[in-house]
Amino acid sequence: MTVTYDPGVHIAGDGWLALHRNENLFAEPALLDDMARSALSKVTLSAYPHPTSLPLREKLAEVHGVDAANVFVGNGSDEVLSELLRLLRPSYDTLWMQDVGYVIHGVLADRLGYRPQTLPGSTFATGRVTAPDGPCLSVVDSPNAVTGHAVSGDDLAALAHTPGAFLVWDNAYGEISGDTLPREVRPNVVTVRSFSKFYALAGARVGYCIGDRALVARMLQRKDAFNVGAFSQAVALEALTRREHFLQLAGELRAARARLVTALEALGFEVRPPRGSFVFAKHATRDAAALHQGLEARRIAVRHFQKDGVRDYLRITVPPAAGMQRLLEALQALLSEASGNGS
Amino acid sequence: MTVTYDPGVHIAGDGWLALHRNENLFAEPALLDDMARSALSKVTLSAYPHPTSLPLREKLAEVHGVDAANVFVGNGSDEVLSELLRLLRPSYDTLWMQDVGYVIHGVLADRLGYRPQTLPGSTFATGRVTAPDGPCLSVVDSPNAVTGHAVSGDDLAALAHTPGAFLVWDNAYGEISGDTLPREVRPNVVTVRSFSKFYALAGARVGYCIGDRALVARMLQRKDAFNVGAFSQAVALEALTRREHFLQLAGELRAARARLVTALEALGFEVRPPRGSFVFAKHATRDAAALHQGLEARRIAVRHFQKDGVRDYLRITVPPAAGMQRLLEALQALLSEASGNGS
Repeated sequence: MTVTYDPGVHIAGDGWLALHRNENLFAEPALLDDMARSALSKVTLSAYPHPTSLPLREKLAEVHGVDAANVFVGNGSDEVLSELLRLLRPSYDTLWMQDVGYVIHGVLADRLGYRPQTLPGSTFATGRVTAPDGPCLSVVDSPNAVTGHAVSGDDLAALAHTPGAFLVWDNAYGEISGDTLPREVRPNVVTVRSFSKFYALAGARVGYCIGDRALVARMLQRKDAFNVGAFSQAVALEALTRREHFLQLAGELRAARARLVTALEALGFEVRPPRGSFVFAKHATRDAAALHQGLEARRIAVRHFQKDGVRDYLRITVPPAAGMQRLLEALQALLSEASGNGS
Repeated sequence: MTVTYDPGVHIAGDGWLALHRNENLFAEPALLDDMARSALSKVTLSAYPHPTSLPLREKLAEVHGVDAANVFVGNGSDEVLSELLRLLRPSYDTLWMQDVGYVIHGVLADRLGYRPQTLPGSTFATGRVTAPDGPCLSVVDSPNAVTGHAVSGDDLAALAHTPGAFLVWDNAYGEISGDTLPREVRPNVVTVRSFSKFYALAGARVGYCIGDRALVARMLQRKDAFNVGAFSQAVALEALTRREHFLQLAGELRAARARLVTALEALGFEVRPPRGSFVFAKHATRDAAALHQGLEARRIAVRHFQKDGVRDYLRITVPPAAGMQRLLEALQALLSEASGNGS
């Protein structure tokens, strides 16, 4: 059976509060508008974009204290992951992943003919991931795209300590979590990041990774000739010049996240320790599928995964104040309905 | 040896006349600006784009008289070709290509592990392509991305007549050539087109193909989750609503192309019959590499391919009037220099 990815229902139309895709809701519309207009003024749409996104890679290198030769930019972090795992495929037959994590990892394992294996440890029971024996290829999303859980730096490092081991650290929520990149670029660790979350540019499809320059050179050689559009490159550059402001917005997001956790706990939810732009919460008595449906009926989209082990949870993107109030009022109303199946 | 693609030098800086990448130079800057602003007003950059570009596919289907289920949209026609040839790989070991053609076809053959084979026939000697024996997979760019040559409809059709045969018709210059798509979608023919040429959106990275709905469904299932950015989808839609105007611009381009052919012939060039947005020309006495260098010294970029059989030619994008005058004056000056190596 082919493993497929469901990105979550595509919502078009007014009145929806979209808390199901972990889009960044904290960036002011005026900020995004300013970035877009500024980017557009620097772009000639009839001309091909820079084939390797060099100006953007140079700026990313400056931000992260590496060389542009260590940076690959792709059409979203999905393309980055795809190119990376495709390049590594001849060297590894098995792809080690967490028990719960970003579904795309499993989709890529299937598409590229890797044997999927679950890393020893448990996101829920112990919070630990331990390295399997031998020279393994692991991909770990930390913070975890489903649970928000962060794997410790030591556990991550151990995955790359075995000779011949390779770690892909999918760090899409990096700056939101407050993660810092490894001080030196190692030949067998690649960190993948995205402009979709921290920089609020999910619509632009820009992801990147930082890794060994020989590896990046091979990725650049093998990618499609022009893989990132001119506007996307330009608007990502605009975001980087406003990095301080986005760091401030991430701080606001974390503060709102803490308020959301407190409010959900007061409503009877158990909330996993959140490190991303969302919370992962299970109600003490109410069925998650029913709550998901009840919210949807009120035009509030949250995410409910069918998979064993996580089907009792809802994943809810942290909204700013107005959305937070609407969400909490809806949950209060749902929970005050007659107990039972909640439908 | 890995087959690689050289997209042509990336020119940044003023004063250059870029005639080396077959960008569409006929679209008015005000038109592109209007399209971009209109697109931007409809896009929320912080939100994920439509995962399958459905609104764009619906409009393309309307334009071409097919169903949206027959249309795949990708991150440039390069991604479309890549996904298509990847999907077909388990069914075919050999990829048949023309003697001269779009270099990416060979790059993809190499990357995907196809055995590359040259189709019987010759772009230069006979202008014909004939079908090889047996159930073959062929990819033919017509108009040809290097020479501008068009393969006849009968020769194209023959490539898909053998039982088990499959034809990928790379028709990137389709509307510029005046090509019409096959009246009915056949299960073993896919036509690939681009927004880069006719619609002057090389910077946006939007390509598409029209084919059998079962095949398109498999491509949609296997592509990256969000493969085309929100702005790119929106600006491509804007282009489709201005299709009549782009058809008019293509007419202007063809008229300018005819003038360019006449002027080049008067300067001693032999010009291949052009069907794309460019001409492919060989001078009677002067070395193409030297002319290429001489034009570059005057900040005019044209394309010179090193490959046997085409190294005597220059590929020159058709410019509008001002660029045409500058190009012809530069060529006149170069040709009036003392004969010899021309350097």
